[in-house]
Amino acid sequence: MKIYLAGPDVFLPNAVELGRRKVELCARYRLVGLYPLDNAVDPAAPDASLAIFKGNEAMMDAADAVIANLTPFRGPGADSGTVYELGFMAGRGKPCFGYSNDPLLYADRVREFTGVTRREGRLTDSGGLTVEDFSLADNLMMIHALERYGGALVTPKARPADIWQDLATFEACVRLAAEHLGVA
Amino acid sequence: MKIYLAGPDVFLPNAVELGRRKVELCARYRLVGLYPLDNAVDPAAPDASLAIFKGNEAMMDAADAVIANLTPFRGPGADSGTVYELGFMAGRGKPCFGYSNDPLLYADRVREFTGVTRREGRLTDSGGLTVEDFSLADNLMMIHALERYGGALVTPKARPADIWQDLATFEACVRLAAEHLGVA
Repeated sequence: MKIYLAGPDVFLPNAVELGRRKVELCARYRLVGLYPLDNAVDPAAPDASLAIFKGNEAMMDAADAVIANLTPFRGPGADSGTVYELGFMAGRGKPCFGYSNDPLLYADRVREFTGVTRREGRLTDSGGLTVEDFSLADNLMMIHALERYGGALVTPKARPADIWQDLATFEACVRLAAEHLGVA
Repeated sequence: MKIYLAGPDVFLPNAVELGRRKVELCARYRLVGLYPLDNAVDPAAPDASLAIFKGNEAMMDAADAVIANLTPFRGPGADSGTVYELGFMAGRGKPCFGYSNDPLLYADRVREFTGVTRREGRLTDSGGLTVEDFSLADNLMMIHALERYGGALVTPKARPADIWQDLATFEACVRLAAEHLGVA
């Protein structure tokens, strides 16, 4: 079984090496990890971004399932490219799994990110926009999609020292996926 | 033709009224706008978030296409719930349209949000993570999905005074969708 490894890992300085470690961990659970192609394309090439898009989409179509790294990225929520891919795989009807290296609830993370107040029963941010307050780790569409299409979001008890390099929670998610997919 | 109106509009204080305005604008172009149900569910009800998820998913399955409001939300990029829904509709193979009321490019928006430096040819944020620098308005997966599955992202020439209440760019996107879907 092939599993697409969505995540902002591709933006790390050691993206290629981290991808190799993720693929190796998948192999231990008899899963073939497919790691996005962002770093296999020369960013200076014409149409580089389109080549990455097409490559990643072909990889998703070849995959039987997805594991999404939903660790908060550049703000209180998950990386949008990863979230798009999670939605795409859910739309394709393929099993979806996800993990985050941040154990906080979304509303608490927004509290750290911007001012939050409670007005007339609604939790709102500094711009007056409602903050989802359902005791979930991130936006409800993603969290419930995981529960419905694969397995609940996997999180650590405490934030690891390095949220980008620590793969313990990723491995727990691979194990969950392997059990669900019947290869463990 | 029915079109799902994804967006963080549901988090605004006047979410319900704004939804009505969006649906009315769709009707002018012979499209039936379907506005997410977030505000039709009592947030204090048990399983409220699951009810919203199921309702929105049923609405997406009933829709022929999607218009996603990708205006940056609580950070430099689009709202994750909206992005999930865009991915879901793309995965379902339905036409995808999108707009943003922010005309900046993603890399420039990250510059406003956090420190950005260029190291060894890579644009990186203050945490050392690569900033996508393809002269696109947001993450390449979303931007190219729109081009591939519907129409290119619609943006205004200048940021409107109120990025959440101004619907001129939304209307331009509705017009594009109506033309593409053959109802205009």
